[in-house]
Amino acid sequence: MSWNENVFIKKFKITYPIVQAGMAGGITTPELVAAVSNYGALGSIGAGYMSASEMAEAIRDTKQLTNKPFNVNVFVPSIDLLEVKEEQRQKALEVLKPYFENLNIREEPVIRDYSTVFNNQIDAIIEEGAAVCSFTFGAPPREVVSRLKEKGVLLIGTATTAAEAIVLEESGMDAIVAQGSEAGGHRGSFPDTREDVQIGIMSLLPRITDCVTIPVIAAGGIMDGRGINAALSLGAQGVQLGTIFLATEESGAHPVYKEKVINSDEQSTMMTKAFSGKYARGIRNTFMEEMEHQKDCILPYPMQHDLTSGLRKGAAARQNPNYMSLWAGQGIGMVKQSQSVIQVLDELIRKMYVGASRR
Amino acid sequence: MSWNENVFIKKFKITYPIVQAGMAGGITTPELVAAVSNYGALGSIGAGYMSASEMAEAIRDTKQLTNKPFNVNVFVPSIDLLEVKEEQRQKALEVLKPYFENLNIREEPVIRDYSTVFNNQIDAIIEEGAAVCSFTFGAPPREVVSRLKEKGVLLIGTATTAAEAIVLEESGMDAIVAQGSEAGGHRGSFPDTREDVQIGIMSLLPRITDCVTIPVIAAGGIMDGRGINAALSLGAQGVQLGTIFLATEESGAHPVYKEKVINSDEQSTMMTKAFSGKYARGIRNTFMEEMEHQKDCILPYPMQHDLTSGLRKGAAARQNPNYMSLWAGQGIGMVKQSQSVIQVLDELIRKMYVGASRR
Repeated sequence: MSWNENVFIKKFKITYPIVQAGMAGGITTPELVAAVSNYGALGSIGAGYMSASEMAEAIRDTKQLTNKPFNVNVFVPSIDLLEVKEEQRQKALEVLKPYFENLNIREEPVIRDYSTVFNNQIDAIIEEGAAVCSFTFGAPPREVVSRLKEKGVLLIGTATTAAEAIVLEESGMDAIVAQGSEAGGHRGSFPDTREDVQIGIMSLLPRITDCVTIPVIAAGGIMDGRGINAALSLGAQGVQLGTIFLATEESGAHPVYKEKVINSDEQSTMMTKAFSGKYARGIRNTFMEEMEHQKDCILPYPMQHDLTSGLRKGAAARQNPNYMSLWAGQGIGMVKQSQSVIQVLDELIRKMYVGASRR
Repeated sequence: MSWNENVFIKKFKITYPIVQAGMAGGITTPELVAAVSNYGALGSIGAGYMSASEMAEAIRDTKQLTNKPFNVNVFVPSIDLLEVKEEQRQKALEVLKPYFENLNIREEPVIRDYSTVFNNQIDAIIEEGAAVCSFTFGAPPREVVSRLKEKGVLLIGTATTAAEAIVLEESGMDAIVAQGSEAGGHRGSFPDTREDVQIGIMSLLPRITDCVTIPVIAAGGIMDGRGINAALSLGAQGVQLGTIFLATEESGAHPVYKEKVINSDEQSTMMTKAFSGKYARGIRNTFMEEMEHQKDCILPYPMQHDLTSGLRKGAAARQNPNYMSLWAGQGIGMVKQSQSVIQVLDELIRKMYVGASRR
């Protein structure tokens, strides 16, 4: 495909078909997001777990640093809190108790109502204004789509199967992220997709581009120009990268997290439900390993996330990576050092087939 | 890369950088292998489970149909049969018993000594002569490498991690298949590699090509010219495809198997240890699903393979796909019909960037 045919960069008013993934948990600082967008790629605020006011602040802070388009990523709520029995909840708490005690963490878990969180987030996006909003874990409700479209916000959905991509196109998305099993962080799959269906981007991408007409953005395992070229060969119009930005100077990832990212290889990650109740890929650690033997005691997403929230924060405060969620993708072995966002993007662009010269 | 720089096609004396995977279990008929090699790609006999005499016959039959180079794929033996306790063996048999009874299969399992099988296979390759020999499940012993090299046989190893690729290059391989998690059939991983490390080809391929100097052949999820182009972008000099050949007219796959392949999509496959004791990807069926709950009763590879051999054969004889091993990769959704090998290869070549015109 020539650059002139790239609907994605035209519609989203960006120079390079590169999206920085909306990683949640404080990684996507305004400095990171703005540096990506100022370069001509699309920065993303990982707002999944943010309250509306935290998100509003993040949007305002980012706008102080860039007037280019950026994206806000949110999580589509699904699970009904009432579905979990008290007995199951107690079992999950029981298993986590020794971890809290060993690290001497006293924070009590607070189960949040994510439907309300989500609705308030949408209000905040409309009030503060953002060029792009991306969704994970499902298609957003129809009224959310219309409200955002009315405000001129461009919408991106996340698909892990062709069936999900078709639903997302029908729901009115302007583009779709095709997330391969290589990707770090949470599987963006819909609640009714089998969670053991984890499709590599090599198989997923051509299937999805065959099934939808809107631009497809490839995510999972892409770490350099070679990966970008491969994704474009497979029919993508853009790529989304997360892991490559984790250890950047602008990233808000904890210093021990950054260190782990730099010193890991392609064998270092695994999928786990231990932290949130939903499969996510991260750097293997003690908590993930041990919870493999306690799978029956993990609550569904997002409840498990709320139960382990204090543990993760406490471990981070104690510089202990064994109990932190160190989300990262399978391309992690290709991160060798901490660089600035500009250096990372320079490197990515340099090896693309279709470079700036052709534009 | 231009074609002139492609060491793989030069060294292996083939026209196209395409390898037909050495699928075991009767799929790779002499007709299939010869059709692929006659076209200018590299056909492979899936000889993993063959006795030396079966293999010799397959080599001779294939040579009747082609004078082009072809490959013979064998399995490097590893596990010591004595490691499994009698009690564990009884437990595994107990779990399988109802399946044999329900299908009215009376065949008694025979545990084979695969070290002897392997050594006899190497003798047969040397006696019959084959241009190429490829290995799965580890690096072959040094004396096997020297004996084959003395005869001018070119050697291909299989790697699922960069560490394995490095060992394979050091062992004297002429090329390496980098097998992504998308691939159908058995994970080619070494016995000491963690079995939950299942790396997608997008992440694996650039890591491996960065770590070795010999040509790398990409395997997993590649189904058409787009996939070939993507693999070449990521640094591969060739590609290996299996699933695309399963339903060909020349394939020896059972008719119910072919039908399943044509009617599956990208969500249809899963990894299972139920059939052989080692992870392999196949089309989800009753046996795989049910054995997910009996994981403790699965013997290590290759003993479980021997235990379930009668079940798989009996199910095939009864046209019952629920208990057959229907190995297939995640690209399966892109197989739409049964075609001849020539039609499949024509289609693959047609969409390659670097087509015949440039050579």
